[in-house]
Amino acid sequence: MKIALAQLNYHIGNFEGNFAKMQDAILKAKKNQADLICFSELASCGYPPRDFLEFRDFISQSMNLVNKLCELSHDIAIVVGAPSVNPNLEGKDLFNSAFFLYEGKVQSITHKALLPNYDIFDEYRYFEPNRKFEMVHFKSKKIAVTICEDIWNLGNENPMYTICPLDEVIDQKPDFILNLSASPFSYEHAKDRLNVLRANVLKYKIPIFYVNCIGAQTDILFDGGSAVLSGDGLCYEELPFFIEDLQYYDLDSVTAGGINREQEKNEIELIYQALVLGIRDYFNKMGFSKAILGLSGGIDSALTACLAVAALGKDQVRVLLMPSQYSSEGSVLDAIALADNLGIQYDTIPIGSVFNEYKSTLDPYFKNLPENVTEENIQARIRGMLLMAFSNKFSAILLNTTNKSEMAVGYGTLYGDLCGGLAVLADVYKTQVYQLANYINRQNEIIPENTIQKPPSAELKPGQKDSDSLPDYSILDKILYQYIEKSLGPKELIQMGFDPAIVMQTLKMVNRAEFKRYQSPPVIRVSSKSFGLGRRMPIEAKYLN
Amino acid sequence: MKIALAQLNYHIGNFEGNFAKMQDAILKAKKNQADLICFSELASCGYPPRDFLEFRDFISQSMNLVNKLCELSHDIAIVVGAPSVNPNLEGKDLFNSAFFLYEGKVQSITHKALLPNYDIFDEYRYFEPNRKFEMVHFKSKKIAVTICEDIWNLGNENPMYTICPLDEVIDQKPDFILNLSASPFSYEHAKDRLNVLRANVLKYKIPIFYVNCIGAQTDILFDGGSAVLSGDGLCYEELPFFIEDLQYYDLDSVTAGGINREQEKNEIELIYQALVLGIRDYFNKMGFSKAILGLSGGIDSALTACLAVAALGKDQVRVLLMPSQYSSEGSVLDAIALADNLGIQYDTIPIGSVFNEYKSTLDPYFKNLPENVTEENIQARIRGMLLMAFSNKFSAILLNTTNKSEMAVGYGTLYGDLCGGLAVLADVYKTQVYQLANYINRQNEIIPENTIQKPPSAELKPGQKDSDSLPDYSILDKILYQYIEKSLGPKELIQMGFDPAIVMQTLKMVNRAEFKRYQSPPVIRVSSKSFGLGRRMPIEAKYLN
Repeated sequence: MKIALAQLNYHIGNFEGNFAKMQDAILKAKKNQADLICFSELASCGYPPRDFLEFRDFISQSMNLVNKLCELSHDIAIVVGAPSVNPNLEGKDLFNSAFFLYEGKVQSITHKALLPNYDIFDEYRYFEPNRKFEMVHFKSKKIAVTICEDIWNLGNENPMYTICPLDEVIDQKPDFILNLSASPFSYEHAKDRLNVLRANVLKYKIPIFYVNCIGAQTDILFDGGSAVLSGDGLCYEELPFFIEDLQYYDLDSVTAGGINREQEKNEIELIYQALVLGIRDYFNKMGFSKAILGLSGGIDSALTACLAVAALGKDQVRVLLMPSQYSSEGSVLDAIALADNLGIQYDTIPIGSVFNEYKSTLDPYFKNLPENVTEENIQARIRGMLLMAFSNKFSAILLNTTNKSEMAVGYGTLYGDLCGGLAVLADVYKTQVYQLANYINRQNEIIPENTIQKPPSAELKPGQKDSDSLPDYSILDKILYQYIEKSLGPKELIQMGFDPAIVMQTLKMVNRAEFKRYQSPPVIRVSSKSFGLGRRMPIEAKYLN
Repeated sequence: MKIALAQLNYHIGNFEGNFAKMQDAILKAKKNQADLICFSELASCGYPPRDFLEFRDFISQSMNLVNKLCELSHDIAIVVGAPSVNPNLEGKDLFNSAFFLYEGKVQSITHKALLPNYDIFDEYRYFEPNRKFEMVHFKSKKIAVTICEDIWNLGNENPMYTICPLDEVIDQKPDFILNLSASPFSYEHAKDRLNVLRANVLKYKIPIFYVNCIGAQTDILFDGGSAVLSGDGLCYEELPFFIEDLQYYDLDSVTAGGINREQEKNEIELIYQALVLGIRDYFNKMGFSKAILGLSGGIDSALTACLAVAALGKDQVRVLLMPSQYSSEGSVLDAIALADNLGIQYDTIPIGSVFNEYKSTLDPYFKNLPENVTEENIQARIRGMLLMAFSNKFSAILLNTTNKSEMAVGYGTLYGDLCGGLAVLADVYKTQVYQLANYINRQNEIIPENTIQKPPSAELKPGQKDSDSLPDYSILDKILYQYIEKSLGPKELIQMGFDPAIVMQTLKMVNRAEFKRYQSPPVIRVSSKSFGLGRRMPIEAKYLN
């Protein structure tokens, strides 16, 4: 039996586009005489469809797509993820299902049993869990069809769930496991995922064919890494990360095992690729090609510009240098050097005259009040407005350059440097920003060394440095990681050896910045806990602040 | 037996403040010789605590509060909602519980069985549902303790749930039902709620004591309306809406029934009160007292100013008039008349000079390109920036004045008129804005009649009217209501008789504006479906757009 795995990039609600992609893969698979082709979880409508699932019209368009696929299934079996309507009166309206299509008919529908409802996941909001477990019979083979999370409760060791779907069918002696996933990327996740697949095949002694999707759905990224593991625990093949692919496997050869082709996983390289795809996909799916961003001479905007060029091409990226009276000459020169290295169009627009006009407009009201954060914010907002004017006039999406450390502690101006259609680095800590910059410079200097070496500064008042108001990033980032990614509280952090005053100052800043994050652009997610729908916090709470 | 119901306003994570309020109520109840006092759902930590529930420190501070209450329970029983740790390895880490405290001890802990996980609710993200049903015995009475949603599956008719908790205990013959709720306000909900309470008492033939909280948690509002119903289905008493209250009831008298004191419910009046409390609470809980907003002479900003004055007092509300070259003289006069009627400080700051400075700064890049939405947005953003400058300089929160119709179709400028700490009207359709304006003017003219009568206009280009780019609000709002509140799709809307072209244009505008809403301020929720966490939509989907 020849099995085709289709690792594709879907677009939410784009039923026509998604069908065209699948049709193309099916025709290729037929030519290659595959017996079965498998697509990923909710491939019909794209993942995560969110509240579109509450629209009957959306579900019916998804079913139309499944029916059209059905017509292509006369000499190949097609396994595809799609929502299906729960026929029972009790329970949620939908199941998260895998349709098994063959000979022009729906042969079976398998529902997902384990529904993630944590972090970015809301599956229990829409779906009823499966409680009935059956295998699919196809050409004298028995297939255990599972969907994503279904294989993540091995031995029932995951406290969130009370059943392990494969335990329910293993007595029927399946020949192999098929898993349709929409498993989001985080830089630590690729390894975890392969470990879970390995544990499954070692327990059940049968191969697994695991199909993930790729692509960005605004904030959430899918990295692919679809894989085939044999019952001996070896990785027969792992599909590439962040690239569409269609591969064929002979079941007998996989069952025989003995082959290991696991690919290398470098965290910084994965983050780099993720961010590039995150930008590219957002533009593609929104129907834009041009990006605009501000270059300050600092490392965050420099890195963002490099990623944008890698994603969209240098002719599609335009940058503005917007020095104020507090900008150092070095910053401007560094920004120009970067733009030259990247070969992108840049313009220098000093903000002094607009700033002065604001000040004289406000002078009758502010009178002799001392300058403070108000005037710093005005500068940041003038830059945001100039960038948005270019964005509007030239149909370019503004890329936001804020990093995760700043976004965490609220070191940024709402409607100023927090403007943008997409926050490229807001899930990348400052210390990781440096690692990415060095990765980009690994062969030759693209980001000027001076940009990497100089102390970070917002340059909004004379001699300002980030370290005036923030702890050192080397310490700050460690505290933030434990608080944000690991949900550790003040006592636990202090027990770990962090300075109590710095801990309390940091947590206070994070909790007080919730109102800013609420209005910030969507953040490309590369960690296990990013700002956005995966981290839901009250704005006006009084806790540690 | 004398039962006290405490309808209080809690602050998320403010354990000290919440304890002080409860202690005060307990001392009063003791003086009044109450046998039992009941607080609402998750009163310890405030509702909804969201992902703070994932912090062990947060849970342990909540448990400290419960233990402190316990010490006050020597001669009064205290029933209080708080998260409790699930001692079992399997399942979510927490239960959503009601602690029954008496004689200095935790006498019992009842867990919530039905966990809402739709709209704004995410309870299944955190809590394990109860599966064990027992009554609480107290002073020779048997009490069926339930939490909020537990009484919303009467006769198991709610398809989302498979059990009805009261059915599980009714054989044990409880004397009355206690329900601890955190039941959010929407303008249709107060009636539904009373109907549900009535259905429960009529089915089980015993009284119910229902305790809700009041107050705003940023976007989500609680209206109180705690109630006591006797077994004959009559409303023995309903507590006021949007006001803290502490009331006492003699169980025998309630059981005897025969008394009906249901309060009147006027939807527009309820929305008015809700918005006023929404503003007041946001400021209180964020620690601010002063508001700033822009007055355009239009009805949305006029209404917002009236609500702000009602919430904060006229001395705490300051407004800016920021006419451009396209503002009509009438608009400025209308705005001044309103400010005078309200007695609030206003300043007139024409935006022409800053606008011209922007234009000349951008001229070398925009060259001979025709003026378009870019220049309209610049004007809106100058206003946003001036307001934010006042906000920063005078520690005032900027109130956003966008209405729900505009927010739905994206008729607003990101970082311009979409700025603000809180969107006061963004869950109020334009047609409801008029109703509220008339409600405010019911005794004398506060909002100038001209503001109410003139055709709506953004005044960003010569002779501009909303009706140039939008369908009539009377039709638009009906389509939006069916699409947003009722999740109806294009076919269903056209079947209802709406013009197909207008339907498709409207849905397209709504779906394309998702990127704007993502970055908009939190919206005070008054309907059953508001923008924010209750409506989760992908940004880059290709569906009906």
